[in-house]
Amino acid sequence: MRIALIGYGSVGQAFARLLERQRRRFPFRITAIQTRQRTAYDPHGLPLEPAWGPPVPVGEFLDRAAPEVVIEITSLNPVDGEPAISHIRAAFARGLPVITANKGPIAHAYSALRAEAAARHILFRFESTVMDGSPVFNLVRNNLPGVTIEGISGVLNSTTKVVLAEMAQGRSLAEGIARAQRMGIAEADPSYDIDGWDSAAKTAALANVLMDANVTPQSVQRTGIGAITPEAVRRAAAEGTVLALVSRVRREADGALTLTTQPERLARHDLLANVDGTSNVLLLHTDLMGTQGIVSVSPGVEQTAYGLFADLVDIAQQL
Amino acid sequence: MRIALIGYGSVGQAFARLLERQRRRFPFRITAIQTRQRTAYDPHGLPLEPAWGPPVPVGEFLDRAAPEVVIEITSLNPVDGEPAISHIRAAFARGLPVITANKGPIAHAYSALRAEAAARHILFRFESTVMDGSPVFNLVRNNLPGVTIEGISGVLNSTTKVVLAEMAQGRSLAEGIARAQRMGIAEADPSYDIDGWDSAAKTAALANVLMDANVTPQSVQRTGIGAITPEAVRRAAAEGTVLALVSRVRREADGALTLTTQPERLARHDLLANVDGTSNVLLLHTDLMGTQGIVSVSPGVEQTAYGLFADLVDIAQQL
Repeated sequence: MRIALIGYGSVGQAFARLLERQRRRFPFRITAIQTRQRTAYDPHGLPLEPAWGPPVPVGEFLDRAAPEVVIEITSLNPVDGEPAISHIRAAFARGLPVITANKGPIAHAYSALRAEAAARHILFRFESTVMDGSPVFNLVRNNLPGVTIEGISGVLNSTTKVVLAEMAQGRSLAEGIARAQRMGIAEADPSYDIDGWDSAAKTAALANVLMDANVTPQSVQRTGIGAITPEAVRRAAAEGTVLALVSRVRREADGALTLTTQPERLARHDLLANVDGTSNVLLLHTDLMGTQGIVSVSPGVEQTAYGLFADLVDIAQQL
Repeated sequence: MRIALIGYGSVGQAFARLLERQRRRFPFRITAIQTRQRTAYDPHGLPLEPAWGPPVPVGEFLDRAAPEVVIEITSLNPVDGEPAISHIRAAFARGLPVITANKGPIAHAYSALRAEAAARHILFRFESTVMDGSPVFNLVRNNLPGVTIEGISGVLNSTTKVVLAEMAQGRSLAEGIARAQRMGIAEADPSYDIDGWDSAAKTAALANVLMDANVTPQSVQRTGIGAITPEAVRRAAAEGTVLALVSRVRREADGALTLTTQPERLARHDLLANVDGTSNVLLLHTDLMGTQGIVSVSPGVEQTAYGLFADLVDIAQQL
């Protein structure tokens, strides 16, 4: 199966390494890569460090690459999800299935993209957008038939977890951010984590896909952790609680959805408060299955790459 | 789709209610039920409280019922998994797919049953056997392609959780058991929970299915919680730890599996120590996806019934 990558940062490179290791069982080949600055093509499969040529517009890239599936993994633009949304539409226009790890398109334009894919009978997958590749969307689609998701809660951002843990040790916000950056988990612009935009984008993505919302990250009532002091964190701990940046989606009595991302004081035994270090936890509140929890323990770029791979296997089985 | 139930206790009745509610979307009908004392048949679908006739041997029951799928939900025999294993084989002998919520057959005879089903090209599903219907086996099968499970850890038994929590409040083992019985979660014979047999059976089932073991509950190094005193529970708490009955499967350097179910002192922030009340948690340690956690929050008979339903939808899609 011929794959075109749009984007080739740390996730793309981890994905390429994963495909190499899985080649014997899964005959997938990356035959074209486009980044902002350059392109590479080889119908027999590109090496991990290909010979690069000049960049071209995305349509031209896809026409020359002639892939069977397109993987969109450019870096996130939280404001409007572009240019990833346009990349996905360029693939759809050519009848190509798309996988993305970029939460922008799912947070900003899922309902339109889903309709466009359905109208053309094209598969569209995005498992890696919210929980770093842990089965969430595929879990609900494949394993929870007939179940309605009635609400969602989660601690979805690793950087704020690390920062709050540092502040509990008496360190400052800036020191906490520096530590998250040393761990390689902070966004390029850490304010995106600290101000709650990453969590809000994930919250919108979850609501769009699992609760049929039609919202954007701007629809989320959002308070970041920038105004929280080390004293407040320690006071919460002294009172037997844990401060965390919690995301919630709730369906109100009138059917409307309320989406929030804000610091909350959680009881110390609350599951949301007890996932280690960089781990994330997501709770799905359902009609038929009570509350189901998904925990991704200390995820990294390898897990995000695996989520792309799982989507790829899913698409390959259906083509 | 015509369904024959073998067993009609609380799970069977919850399953029948669930099918009634889902009838519009999923046209499944229970057309025959067998219990130890009686049988009922109606090719058009049985009501929740059918008119019963006398019991017959299982083969005769299946021949008269002529179902398209058989659901085995007799109560558990922890010693050897019978008569459930024979029920399943009677269905296989007639070319019928089987779903079970009974962990006995999976803990005692999975590898033989899997081979028998495969030889006859028969589907065999058992999602509800370990985590009360939460996606575990279907999660690995459907959503984690190419992943190898390298180890398993979990807190899999609700009764011992409740008993240890009661003991932390200063109450006795007997008082803890009484409370679990009032909550309706203890096995008919609570020693089966307390002595670790329920957890050991789940551990063997997980190892058999997910790590290709060929073990029985007797293969698990097992220590129950019967010898633990309220003082020991409180001393653990005073030292910042939590006592829990933990199950683990580990692959040793020589490839052999070590299976244990025993009380362990966990750090207070350990995910295994922080699932509420009757909730269960399972961690899958993998090669490609790090550690993935599954939490079933306060599961009950409705969740177990849902697991049967999810298996049924899976089979219906493949027939």
